[in-house]
Amino acid sequence: MQIAVVLFDRFTALDAVGPYETLGRLPDAETVFVAEHTGPVRTDTGNLALTADRTLADVPAPDIVVVPGGPGQSPQMENETLLDWLRAADATSTWTTSVCTGSLLLAAAGLLEGRRATSHWLALDFLKRYGAEPTGERVVTDGKYVTAAGVSSGIDMGLTLLGRIAGDEHAQAVQLLTEYDPQPPYDAGSPAKAPAHIVEKLRGRSRFIRT
Amino acid sequence: MQIAVVLFDRFTALDAVGPYETLGRLPDAETVFVAEHTGPVRTDTGNLALTADRTLADVPAPDIVVVPGGPGQSPQMENETLLDWLRAADATSTWTTSVCTGSLLLAAAGLLEGRRATSHWLALDFLKRYGAEPTGERVVTDGKYVTAAGVSSGIDMGLTLLGRIAGDEHAQAVQLLTEYDPQPPYDAGSPAKAPAHIVEKLRGRSRFIRT
Repeated sequence: MQIAVVLFDRFTALDAVGPYETLGRLPDAETVFVAEHTGPVRTDTGNLALTADRTLADVPAPDIVVVPGGPGQSPQMENETLLDWLRAADATSTWTTSVCTGSLLLAAAGLLEGRRATSHWLALDFLKRYGAEPTGERVVTDGKYVTAAGVSSGIDMGLTLLGRIAGDEHAQAVQLLTEYDPQPPYDAGSPAKAPAHIVEKLRGRSRFIRT
Repeated sequence: MQIAVVLFDRFTALDAVGPYETLGRLPDAETVFVAEHTGPVRTDTGNLALTADRTLADVPAPDIVVVPGGPGQSPQMENETLLDWLRAADATSTWTTSVCTGSLLLAAAGLLEGRRATSHWLALDFLKRYGAEPTGERVVTDGKYVTAAGVSSGIDMGLTLLGRIAGDEHAQAVQLLTEYDPQPPYDAGSPAKAPAHIVEKLRGRSRFIRT
């Protein structure tokens, strides 16, 4: 079983690392970080780089595709090399997944047409423009397509898919090993729960989501 | 404000990325990933590398020190270069923090003597051997020392410290941007909550924590 996590300039680190740390603990699976070119790929803050060990061309047919999002996703939506790779990989994948605005890349590749899907809460409207049916859920499964909401939701997505593939017991063991017993100090993690003026302020900051 | 995240061979990626993605969103702060040598540093699975952009020597006096854990922490507990750096950095830091078994490194450097602290649930006993007072809490603050439990708890730690430094509103905005509204598909994230036979099985697997 091969899991390919796709990197691109200015992706959001946790989008990729959440599924890697959970789904990547699938028994007998190899997780490989891929990008157009091998080598370090910078995240959205510029302060961190993750290494792409293989090029997209090196990994043409992964069993599971994981596409993170981030501010750098906009130019990628017109990157035909990446979109072609996504379409080809999807043609043989068992699962095609995304975190955050990664779903906009799947949508731009034409893979979410008429499908229920999700994305970062600031990007749900964009998803609709590409023919997907956005839902407010944190993890959405439609056929073999599993999309997750913003950034941290990739952990929930990873555990959900891990349970589906390897069974509940294995997923629970990984949850326990990663001590995923969340206790956020605030209850502001969704637009429905956060103080309204904070939600409005972020809606006004267009730099996070541009498409 | 400078935040130094310490990398070493076979660290756990999410331990480092959780605080980076939350605490690292501190206004006007620079987050820098440091290690003994610059370049890619492999994580515990071998499938991912994060780039250390600076050596420990390049960053002698960060305001905030973040030490992740992972299976690779054992040999580091005898790495005098790293322990000396931790002691020196701690002498001038505003906050000295850890995630998972990173607290064992702080303890080995002599920084947690007589202090309340936490670690991965499988490592709490080891913490005691170094004179710390382990608690069962997810995030423990004792003076300027903030330690977090296993792997994913670095997200909670990062938000907690972010709120303390930059205020509740800023921390809530970061929680909303990272859409940290956890909905794990299981409730197995702590030894008190996970099925007993899974807890026992992991206790028997000594490879995760060795010291």
